[in-house]
Amino acid sequence: MKTYQHSVIVHWGDTDPAKIVFYPNYFVWFDESTRLFFDSVGLNWDELMDHYGVVGFPIVDAHARFLLPSMFRDEIVVESSIGEWKEKTFVMNHVVINRGKRSVEGSETRVWAMRHPEDPTRLKAGVIPPEIIKAFE
Amino acid sequence: MKTYQHSVIVHWGDTDPAKIVFYPNYFVWFDESTRLFFDSVGLNWDELMDHYGVVGFPIVDAHARFLLPSMFRDEIVVESSIGEWKEKTFVMNHVVINRGKRSVEGSETRVWAMRHPEDPTRLKAGVIPPEIIKAFE
Amino acid sequence: MKTYQHSVIVHWGDTDPAKIVFYPNYFVWFDESTRLFFDSVGLNWDELMDHYGVVGFPIVDAHARFLLPSMFRDEIVVESSIGEWKEKTFVMNHVVINRGKRSVEGSETRVWAMRHPEDPTRLKAGVIPPEIIKAFE
Amino acid sequence: MKTYQHSVIVHWGDTDPAKIVFYPNYFVWFDESTRLFFDSVGLNWDELMDHYGVVGFPIVDAHARFLLPSMFRDEIVVESSIGEWKEKTFVMNHVVINRGKRSVEGSETRVWAMRHPEDPTRLKAGVIPPEIIKAFE
Repeated sequence: MKTYQHSVIVHWGDTDPAKIVFYPNYFVWFDESTRLFFDSVGLNWDELMDHYGVVGFPIVDAHARFLLPSMFRDEIVVESSIGEWKEKTFVMNHVVINRGKRSVEGSETRVWAMRHPEDPTRLKAGVIPPEIIKAFE
Repeated sequence: MKTYQHSVIVHWGDTDPAKIVFYPNYFVWFDESTRLFFDSVGLNWDELMDHYGVVGFPIVDAHARFLLPSMFRDEIVVESSIGEWKEKTFVMNHVVINRGKRSVEGSETRVWAMRHPEDPTRLKAGVIPPEIIKAFE
Repeated sequence: MKTYQHSVIVHWGDTDPAKIVFYPNYFVWFDESTRLFFDSVGLNWDELMDHYGVVGFPIVDAHARFLLPSMFRDEIVVESSIGEWKEKTFVMNHVVINRGKRSVEGSETRVWAMRHPEDPTRLKAGVIPPEIIKAFE
Repeated sequence: MKTYQHSVIVHWGDTDPAKIVFYPNYFVWFDESTRLFFDSVGLNWDELMDHYGVVGFPIVDAHARFLLPSMFRDEIVVESSIGEWKEKTFVMNHVVINRGKRSVEGSETRVWAMRHPEDPTRLKAGVIPPEIIKAFE
């Protein structure tokens, strides 16, 4: 199974008066990492949209456990891997490593979403094609 | 049990090219709402820090389920309530209501954190005083 | 000449380890205020886009002078006013008031932008209609 | 004169419904770049604070001209250089290059700030030591 590593520098503006990362930023980095992981296995989201008629990968669930704080100047690594493929959704796992230690563990659940055939303003979950799953193996 | 309602306007910069709220912003609003809820029951965090020697309420877990998207110009309400008091941690629940519908359900778990008596660079969970719990009843 | 006042609470996540507002946030609030000011004079941007064929009001210049810092919990007011109407651009001025004092002075210059008639991927500045200017008087 | 180049990937969350970078983000990148530039010439801000008694480099003025938009997936470079040394302030210039073109030009003016000797809650501009200026030559 493929994984993806994405380095992030913790900048001044990412931290709060307690001098640690303001927690919603971890989800920003998860979102970045998911997109970069897709790119890294040759799945460009824009091309997927054109090819499969998907309109994106809307998130339906996000979770994080914060084990250790990260601080201004820290250089952290977000390690991403597929947690699970379901028929129409998938779980992307993310682990933040700081100075060799697991600092944050998180996951995002996203939908393979198409335009609804009868109502273009709505979305509808579609079945994830097997070649998408295969690209991460 | 007390609850707290916090109105948020979805601004242009909160939304992404899919024209919906970029999901980490919901956690920003959860964080705001938790602080405002404490204020609303008379518990100012700065005063708590002085009075009890707590150094803050670091987050150890955050979760959200995204049921419906919100868009630019939407005026949403974040409804917060205590989900659970444990000995040294508490769960704050948040529900986002948009046009009368539950759009996001989330929770944050936070620690009643003190400086470690033997190592001031470390934190240590303390027992939540009963009067804190009572303030939310 | 009309003006617009927009209240902003400085939240924890808006501040940095120096315990003051991280300065790019002021531009976020300027952007919010410009949109709200247009709304307040009856000019909804979405309707303008439909009615005049404008595709938005892209920013070409932003400036701020920081006179006094604002801190977590401060409730500030952004006061916006038209600084100048030029043929195809306008300047929006913003003043941040905190505890009765001018804290930040800023401006944004934006373009009345249309799709280019010969190349839909490009933009082209258009002449601002007189009724738009009148709406702010 | 030394310069500094800092690469930035434009991520999904940095862009708005017009599919371009939401402009306050450029100031976030300017702030990052200023700090990284100081680091690159051997001037670590934390060490400067200890050594010179400065409490930081608060910003007093920020400006940007937006020449061309940048989009999701773009890899831009922020080129920073000293614009001017005054007695107690300095100007940091930033140019954003995207696909070989100048996309944004900006500047930040920052103060060499000390604690006020008679009132520790206030700041006071100090004279910038010559060795600081020399470090950028």
